[in-house]
Amino acid sequence: MCRWLAYSGTPIRLEELLVKRDRSLIDQSLHARQGATPTNGDGFGVGWYEDGGDRPPRLYRSTHPAWNDRNLRELAAGIESPLFFAHIRASTGTAIQETNTHPFRYGRWLWMHNGLIREFARLRRELVLAVDDSLFLSIEGTTDSELMFFLALTFGLQDDPVTAVERMVGFVEQTGHRTGVDQPIQMTIAASDGRTIWAFRYSSEHDSRSLYFSTRMDALKAHYPDIEELTGLSDETRVVVSEPLGDLPGAWNEVPESHVGIVQPGDDELRPFTPRLA
Amino acid sequence: MCRWLAYSGTPIRLEELLVKRDRSLIDQSLHARQGATPTNGDGFGVGWYEDGGDRPPRLYRSTHPAWNDRNLRELAAGIESPLFFAHIRASTGTAIQETNTHPFRYGRWLWMHNGLIREFARLRRELVLAVDDSLFLSIEGTTDSELMFFLALTFGLQDDPVTAVERMVGFVEQTGHRTGVDQPIQMTIAASDGRTIWAFRYSSEHDSRSLYFSTRMDALKAHYPDIEELTGLSDETRVVVSEPLGDLPGAWNEVPESHVGIVQPGDDELRPFTPRLA
Amino acid sequence: MCRWLAYSGTPIRLEELLVKRDRSLIDQSLHARQGATPTNGDGFGVGWYEDGGDRPPRLYRSTHPAWNDRNLRELAAGIESPLFFAHIRASTGTAIQETNTHPFRYGRWLWMHNGLIREFARLRRELVLAVDDSLFLSIEGTTDSELMFFLALTFGLQDDPVTAVERMVGFVEQTGHRTGVDQPIQMTIAASDGRTIWAFRYSSEHDSRSLYFSTRMDALKAHYPDIEELTGLSDETRVVVSEPLGDLPGAWNEVPESHVGIVQPGDDELRPFTPRLA
Amino acid sequence: MCRWLAYSGTPIRLEELLVKRDRSLIDQSLHARQGATPTNGDGFGVGWYEDGGDRPPRLYRSTHPAWNDRNLRELAAGIESPLFFAHIRASTGTAIQETNTHPFRYGRWLWMHNGLIREFARLRRELVLAVDDSLFLSIEGTTDSELMFFLALTFGLQDDPVTAVERMVGFVEQTGHRTGVDQPIQMTIAASDGRTIWAFRYSSEHDSRSLYFSTRMDALKAHYPDIEELTGLSDETRVVVSEPLGDLPGAWNEVPESHVGIVQPGDDELRPFTPRLA
Repeated sequence: MCRWLAYSGTPIRLEELLVKRDRSLIDQSLHARQGATPTNGDGFGVGWYEDGGDRPPRLYRSTHPAWNDRNLRELAAGIESPLFFAHIRASTGTAIQETNTHPFRYGRWLWMHNGLIREFARLRRELVLAVDDSLFLSIEGTTDSELMFFLALTFGLQDDPVTAVERMVGFVEQTGHRTGVDQPIQMTIAASDGRTIWAFRYSSEHDSRSLYFSTRMDALKAHYPDIEELTGLSDETRVVVSEPLGDLPGAWNEVPESHVGIVQPGDDELRPFTPRLA
Repeated sequence: MCRWLAYSGTPIRLEELLVKRDRSLIDQSLHARQGATPTNGDGFGVGWYEDGGDRPPRLYRSTHPAWNDRNLRELAAGIESPLFFAHIRASTGTAIQETNTHPFRYGRWLWMHNGLIREFARLRRELVLAVDDSLFLSIEGTTDSELMFFLALTFGLQDDPVTAVERMVGFVEQTGHRTGVDQPIQMTIAASDGRTIWAFRYSSEHDSRSLYFSTRMDALKAHYPDIEELTGLSDETRVVVSEPLGDLPGAWNEVPESHVGIVQPGDDELRPFTPRLA
Repeated sequence: MCRWLAYSGTPIRLEELLVKRDRSLIDQSLHARQGATPTNGDGFGVGWYEDGGDRPPRLYRSTHPAWNDRNLRELAAGIESPLFFAHIRASTGTAIQETNTHPFRYGRWLWMHNGLIREFARLRRELVLAVDDSLFLSIEGTTDSELMFFLALTFGLQDDPVTAVERMVGFVEQTGHRTGVDQPIQMTIAASDGRTIWAFRYSSEHDSRSLYFSTRMDALKAHYPDIEELTGLSDETRVVVSEPLGDLPGAWNEVPESHVGIVQPGDDELRPFTPRLA
Repeated sequence: MCRWLAYSGTPIRLEELLVKRDRSLIDQSLHARQGATPTNGDGFGVGWYEDGGDRPPRLYRSTHPAWNDRNLRELAAGIESPLFFAHIRASTGTAIQETNTHPFRYGRWLWMHNGLIREFARLRRELVLAVDDSLFLSIEGTTDSELMFFLALTFGLQDDPVTAVERMVGFVEQTGHRTGVDQPIQMTIAASDGRTIWAFRYSSEHDSRSLYFSTRMDALKAHYPDIEELTGLSDETRVVVSEPLGDLPGAWNEVPESHVGIVQPGDDELRPFTPRLA
């Protein structure tokens, strides 16, 4: 079990969401409320895009718990970004090492995941074999999460992200069913190319881990004209999170089961998500 | 808040108490039941004496959480000892670094602590100045716990341990009261010279953190003749712990408030503990 | 022995000096040419100020060797700064931990050091006692370097940096001589408040570790009109380094023995440095 | 480039060879003399068997440089073993993480390597595919060294070690040649099952990294009757090393090019090593 957060909008310091909230992501590393486990202390990572640039995103990943890593607080105070990911890890068994820590990066793409592929040990070899030759060497770790990323890349993530993830999930389920795994996949996933964020909520058993998106900023500002920190944020600013960062009524909305949310320039979208076979 | 464990008796593998129990110390690093906080993920340490030798104890200390440190499991499986300490840390503010991790060592002595000196920041300088010149350079970290050790050494820990700790506590309380700190100290402490373990339970407010000692082995074996793992243990085998390692009725006894337990060759002792002024 | 680098001028990515040079600081961590030891693998740190802001500087410090730390390369590529420090450490005996890693910070001030206080173990207690009460609690580590910083702060670093460092050195030498240490101090030091950099080169034996400053940019650009990377740099841009980052003839000038260089808005200065007694 | 050491004989403390020699392995981590690089600071590992037991070997592996890891010195002083491996790493490109650190373990077997598979990136996928299904899941890291171990296991290491390694090398060379890699492999390798050590020296170009074995103890003791530390060692005691641990004339002998040394109960052996095709 893990917790994650994806932000898109007016450039802000990372610490605004990672540190300076009652239920900031750092707080959730010790005291998650809605997760399978309260402690997410098996490392963390942040990935961020720069404002207005075409550079690849930058990563800071560590195997220490987020709550006691001083460098994380320093960087969160020093780095400003219009689009960033943050993730705190609770390992489901694979080694605690930076290469197993989210977000994962490929070119301009970031990827992070909460959940698991069930009986991954039995399925792993077959799944690895399906990764495209040209991508194989970029796999650095041993997690199911990273492998899902490289399968999605193999299935065309960079061209048609929703279809690619639907095909990835279809392939994992098919592989699982063939080897007798009942409910092969459980996931919330965030992916981004630096402009758009795709946030997926799905599980084979249709009982997926929690996922929320923040209410449109114009509506929120109209409702709470006195909350100062909202005034500086553009109407397009949006946060997607494993669990709400606070208690503000009306601020958080659940992503429905088997759906994908798309945070993008212009109107955001919420679409049904259906695994598909290749 | 922290959790700790001290063992004396028939040489056993460290993993017997650190890993292979329902409520092993590694389990307590994620899920302590009786502590101020459930998570003790700010590093850990073990210190062990060799069987029949006069060598100083050895230390393995790490800033990683005990639950995900592979080396700890390897060493706990590979090292056998007749007297060892183990400690899992929940920092009350000082830096997460090996030199702030328990047990602390000086010569043949080991020391570990659960609790705190209140308003340590205000008292620290005066306490540091009281440490003997010859000991000053051996202070490596910045914790209240290590400083208490060096104050106790200054007050004669190596000659008369109980009196030295009583004087240390008296001095900390006196210093605290003089600067307006109400309840200056909260502690359970274990100290050893490799033959005897002294286990202290005390707090200025007389509401100290939990501390337990195991029942005499002969009594326990008589009561539970069928528990195989007890049969190999000598009658003198004893464990002192922040919280019980299991549910066996009759196996665990609370150290009374303001007392010190002494685990030693021959009959063990339980004595009242009273801070004293120099 | 350590190596360090201080930059002031047109905002650049840290990687320009830390990574992308033949003799970048990361290269020097494995292959220093002019140092007492070729390997500086006992941790590293960077400290940087933001452009145009009044925020305190940010730190990233790690106990890993600079040459194999991926996060350092990520941050060096992602962070741009008009004034930054970087330091690679070769411990002279104190523990390898982040709190012993340069640069050190106090409020808006950064400090880093190459060299040592000789027989520090014998002098340490007396030096610690001279630190001002209000500063004492901010000492986090156990190095001579950090202690020199807090002594300089005690002696007025924030008001008159050159005099404060002269008094710090005078005090260390006096304390050393009184206890029979012949040549108590060896140092190159950089200090900054975010606007000015003070770079000191001094040792009791007048045979100090190497220190260089870069030639004025207008002169360098006139001499090398074809070097593209120079064209974007303001005339005031200046680098101070333990050893040159490359071979360009005329680019590097030695700071003379017992001198302090002052890199500041307007003309920079080079002044004699003389320890003084309180 | 890396350095390694394998010991078999009278049980000794690990520190005897890791710490207490002029050219101990810890010294070689900073100052290797015969290696491709003088610094081997990208982590280290030790693996040791217990005396007289059938337990699997234990591992302690870390990503810190051996020269500044305090835990290593503690364990080397505290652990005694009749057969142990130690390895210091200089990465040839793969990530610095414990799962990429030697020795590697599978059941009762240990394995460590100095050298590389050339153009590993291009060959990796095909080599991975050749690993037996039942072994695939035990691969935890991303190094060429670990993959060579699992290929050797696939080819029968546990039944006929020399043939299995000859087949592994033959397979790597065949795969390399087919994809246009000229000299696919460079290696010195140690493998053990806890009773015997196999030490291989081979490279496709027949210009292999250095490898030495110590002279028979009876001969050495006869020659140096006054060296006290030798007297306690059995005649069968033997050390195999990347480079000599000292200067004693007559003490060290080069393993010839393309040979395997077998250290075992009774007479040791030295045999030619010839890669073979499956």
